[in-house]
Amino acid sequence: MRKVYLSNTPRKEALELFLNKVEIPRSMEIIAVAESTGRVTSEPVFARLSMPGYHAAAMDGIAVRAESTFGASDQNPLILKPEDDYCYINTGGPLPADFNAVIKIEDIQPFDDESVEILNPATPWQHVRAVGEDVVAGEIIVQAKHRLKPPDLGALLAGGISEVRVLKKPKVAIIPSGSEVIEPGRERKPGSVPDFNSTVIASYLHEWGAEPEIMPIVPDEPANIRTAVTAALEIHDLIIVIAGSSAGAKDFTFTVIEELGEVFLHGVATRPGKPTILGQANNKPVIGLPGYPVSAYMSLEWFVQPLLCRYLGLPLPQREKHPVTLGRRIISEIGVEEFIRMTVGYVDGRYMANPLTRGAGVTMSMVRADGLLVIPPNSLGFEQDETVDIELYRPLSELRCNLLAAGSHDLIIDLLGTALKERDPQVNITSSHLGSMGGIAAIGRGQAHLAGVHLFDPDTKEYNQSYIRKMLPDKKTHLVNLTYRMQGWIVPRGNPEGINRIEDLAEKKLAFINRQKGAGTRILFDHLLQEAGLSAKDIYGYEREEHTHLNIAAAVAAGTARVGLGILPAAKAFDLDFVPLIEERYDLLLSDSFYTSKEANLLLDIITDPLFQKQVEDMGGYSMRDAGKNIDGL
Amino acid sequence: MRKVYLSNTPRKEALELFLNKVEIPRSMEIIAVAESTGRVTSEPVFARLSMPGYHAAAMDGIAVRAESTFGASDQNPLILKPEDDYCYINTGGPLPADFNAVIKIEDIQPFDDESVEILNPATPWQHVRAVGEDVVAGEIIVQAKHRLKPPDLGALLAGGISEVRVLKKPKVAIIPSGSEVIEPGRERKPGSVPDFNSTVIASYLHEWGAEPEIMPIVPDEPANIRTAVTAALEIHDLIIVIAGSSAGAKDFTFTVIEELGEVFLHGVATRPGKPTILGQANNKPVIGLPGYPVSAYMSLEWFVQPLLCRYLGLPLPQREKHPVTLGRRIISEIGVEEFIRMTVGYVDGRYMANPLTRGAGVTMSMVRADGLLVIPPNSLGFEQDETVDIELYRPLSELRCNLLAAGSHDLIIDLLGTALKERDPQVNITSSHLGSMGGIAAIGRGQAHLAGVHLFDPDTKEYNQSYIRKMLPDKKTHLVNLTYRMQGWIVPRGNPEGINRIEDLAEKKLAFINRQKGAGTRILFDHLLQEAGLSAKDIYGYEREEHTHLNIAAAVAAGTARVGLGILPAAKAFDLDFVPLIEERYDLLLSDSFYTSKEANLLLDIITDPLFQKQVEDMGGYSMRDAGKNIDGL
Repeated sequence: MRKVYLSNTPRKEALELFLNKVEIPRSMEIIAVAESTGRVTSEPVFARLSMPGYHAAAMDGIAVRAESTFGASDQNPLILKPEDDYCYINTGGPLPADFNAVIKIEDIQPFDDESVEILNPATPWQHVRAVGEDVVAGEIIVQAKHRLKPPDLGALLAGGISEVRVLKKPKVAIIPSGSEVIEPGRERKPGSVPDFNSTVIASYLHEWGAEPEIMPIVPDEPANIRTAVTAALEIHDLIIVIAGSSAGAKDFTFTVIEELGEVFLHGVATRPGKPTILGQANNKPVIGLPGYPVSAYMSLEWFVQPLLCRYLGLPLPQREKHPVTLGRRIISEIGVEEFIRMTVGYVDGRYMANPLTRGAGVTMSMVRADGLLVIPPNSLGFEQDETVDIELYRPLSELRCNLLAAGSHDLIIDLLGTALKERDPQVNITSSHLGSMGGIAAIGRGQAHLAGVHLFDPDTKEYNQSYIRKMLPDKKTHLVNLTYRMQGWIVPRGNPEGINRIEDLAEKKLAFINRQKGAGTRILFDHLLQEAGLSAKDIYGYEREEHTHLNIAAAVAAGTARVGLGILPAAKAFDLDFVPLIEERYDLLLSDSFYTSKEANLLLDIITDPLFQKQVEDMGGYSMRDAGKNIDGL
Repeated sequence: MRKVYLSNTPRKEALELFLNKVEIPRSMEIIAVAESTGRVTSEPVFARLSMPGYHAAAMDGIAVRAESTFGASDQNPLILKPEDDYCYINTGGPLPADFNAVIKIEDIQPFDDESVEILNPATPWQHVRAVGEDVVAGEIIVQAKHRLKPPDLGALLAGGISEVRVLKKPKVAIIPSGSEVIEPGRERKPGSVPDFNSTVIASYLHEWGAEPEIMPIVPDEPANIRTAVTAALEIHDLIIVIAGSSAGAKDFTFTVIEELGEVFLHGVATRPGKPTILGQANNKPVIGLPGYPVSAYMSLEWFVQPLLCRYLGLPLPQREKHPVTLGRRIISEIGVEEFIRMTVGYVDGRYMANPLTRGAGVTMSMVRADGLLVIPPNSLGFEQDETVDIELYRPLSELRCNLLAAGSHDLIIDLLGTALKERDPQVNITSSHLGSMGGIAAIGRGQAHLAGVHLFDPDTKEYNQSYIRKMLPDKKTHLVNLTYRMQGWIVPRGNPEGINRIEDLAEKKLAFINRQKGAGTRILFDHLLQEAGLSAKDIYGYEREEHTHLNIAAAVAAGTARVGLGILPAAKAFDLDFVPLIEERYDLLLSDSFYTSKEANLLLDIITDPLFQKQVEDMGGYSMRDAGKNIDGL
């Protein structure tokens, strides 16, 4: 018997249910103030001592009795005798008994070896820091449930508090499950999945104030999972089981939690994150997280962070929201709350955002994301150019400096990103792999700063210009050469099929892996097909698409394709062979507004820097002979 | 010979000068990815392996050859035989060689013990996660100078990276100086100053990615300081000397840095923070920070954080800015850039901000601050009710829930804050100690949510109402009793002067410590004076003012006053004696808009909670017999 369908509980309802059912009981510990930054006080902290603990001079000068200085003036200088009338005092020094004011060193003049002269009277308590001016004994220095910041530590120490009572970090057990799962550093075989989720989850939990412990990986067997959860319940305040939370043949988390305690909920109406289990055992919260990384991290944030915040008595952190213009249409399904990772950049006066892949298995979409678009369950999505609010993963001030690179992707764009960031830490390049045609269109719509393009025109035998003229007839843009690069066949080591010409692919019915529509490499392939008098039908795998050179090489390396068209560095990355076919021109198309910016200047500086050019050419397959040249000037 | 005047270099100019003169050379280290959150990559990290490393099922179901399923339909079900035609596969499992698609478990039906039936064809590569779908070998996972976040760790591990090259944390020596300075936990004597600055500075440096080391405290002797700096130069990348940075008789930091290297600058045109020294020795940056805590922390942020950010290749974090309305006039001096710590709350649709004390020695102003007002050097300040931008120390979403308590302060207000936060972690109470009159005025101007008032009217022999009617004739407000509390003489233990009546103060010429104008306690004192037929002139120390009961008690405890008027808990905090004089009514005045809010409801709930009332009465000197009663209903 296995349960096949999950519930579709709205996320907020699920959270409310969970928070009502479970609670991490608070416990405290006493730690040194010096080690307490980021920790949360369990109760208000009252000052034990005052700071200063005595009346202290606030200036370098002399301590006096104000009353004995009355009457001093320009016309009537007053002579003060040492010990009786005054004594020297430094900032912070204790005011001697019976003195009640300080006169600044600048305002006194030596009269003879011992006495000094003043021209102005002192007012009582001038330039004196009274007892308790900073902290006064008995006052509350910090409230209960206060996350300690650096200056708080100073006030606590000033108030005579060296140790502080804080909430203990809740102990969280992270139990990775799955018979195919191996520790992340182990050697991988087909079918083995490295457990990187536990590390990410532990890292989030650390940030949120918990004390995570990654437990040994448990195989997909109910008995093993049960044993692991039971053992964790002895020690930990919260148990997280990773994977096995869905409704497949090997998904046992539900059964185990139900046996040991109670499942409150199985299935949230979200994408990603749906196969989440919320339950308890021994009155401790037990959560089954999905195995897909993005699902797991989202679900963790939705259900574990609020539990920890409540334990710590802290408000749930809210990400800043900001309106952005959508570069693409985004479709969503009614009844499902969708979470879409977005890249963001500031183009021509507006924040442009584009969706990253929605795949729940794509960790890189979390790495690359600048923000998160939350599509409510009652929405069918948004149109291109619509303005929507997104949650920001990075501060707006940084996103403002994001350069959006659309179009064809090349490793050089990443290297440019590195070099740019080195010269100005504010500047990042964010790439959307849209292909050359997509890049030109994005520049046309004001959705990108620059685009890599390498579009061969069989009619003119030239690259790029004719396409740009046709696609953006009325738009002022700038075309700058970045590189010439070698395209060729990416084939297994030793080129076992002896591939040379495109005809070889058709004749030998070799499994081919193609690039997506609009990619320059696909257009090149189509041109080669046409020249050879062949058509798509003659190529096995023509319809199978990948979006990058590296993914083409990966398919060949994995043996699921025998050949692909791509660039040398991709073949090298997978230790494959490369059969050079044609050198193509790869240009950067810059929007007019970007072309005149400081960042574009930096970019052109780097491209024309001989050191940078050498770094590129050393990778092989590139010539930087015209790099940085304006295309009209070629 | 000593240098008496400091330069007045604008802060930005000083920073530019400093950054041009010094640099922390970059060095790297290799650490485990699992330990790398928050660290900064020294170079781009390229994936070594692809994730997945094989074609993997994206669903539970069966693996098939898509081509052999073509033609399946409702009318024409297709029977698949095990092994030849299909095999069962779980999510994440490797697709067997020669299979190229997955059919979901929900879309198949058992036909007999072995075979299954399908009603729809599969398309090639459906429900298959291709090699490298998440991370593809050779791609850049994270750029150089990237601060690693939790999901980055997952992508690195997925890409076969277990160790990552990061920038070493710069080693910073913190040298506390001053012959009067003692370690913060040590017993204090008059004149000894606990070194809490080092702990705060170390805590900031930790947050900013450095590795601070607090060195032993060095006395104010050039030779000792020189030795300490010289030793630190051997090991550390950056040296910070705390205190001795001004131009006093015992300020030797300047001389030492000049001897060992070079002083670029002594004196910044800021308040606080002016006595800052920027220099170098052995080509390593050496900074002399002011001894006053607020000055030191500000100067650290201005000059050390940018140096560390540049080292790490990170943009300097910018605090969010937001417009606020000023509750008070703020005066500034031309030529000086002023930094004023502010409290902020959201009252009647606008963010109201009030300045905290400007004293550079008041650490508590940093603890309490919600934001920072930066007054440029060319400004004379701002008028009350003017709208200005301030930098936020806490997110706006939290400030929105700050309750501004103006007026007279009582410890119960702090206890209310604790209890409120316990019930709703969003809610904080921020107190301005304005005195009862100041509190009524603040409610009148829409600058506070609530105000503590205890104003005795000699004419009506009643509390508060007559004052409110007079000061706010047209404003709808609500007056709710908080407590009755005992006011009395705060005197040294044993009441050596036998103080009982106000006449005792006059007759014995005892040093008195008064409250500020507008405080209910001062008005009470004036009333007692008048009743006794005395005047201000008869009281020695009448003009010496403090703003809180605790500060009154502190003055008595320190022996600089022999008597003050105040409440019992203040006397108890300093182990002083208390001579009860009069029980007074202490009410809360609530603005009309606040009175109907959720937060006010919570507040009244707490005030009328018997547990809370018991907690208050247990402190002594309070009666909660009418707590929460509307004054009209008394």
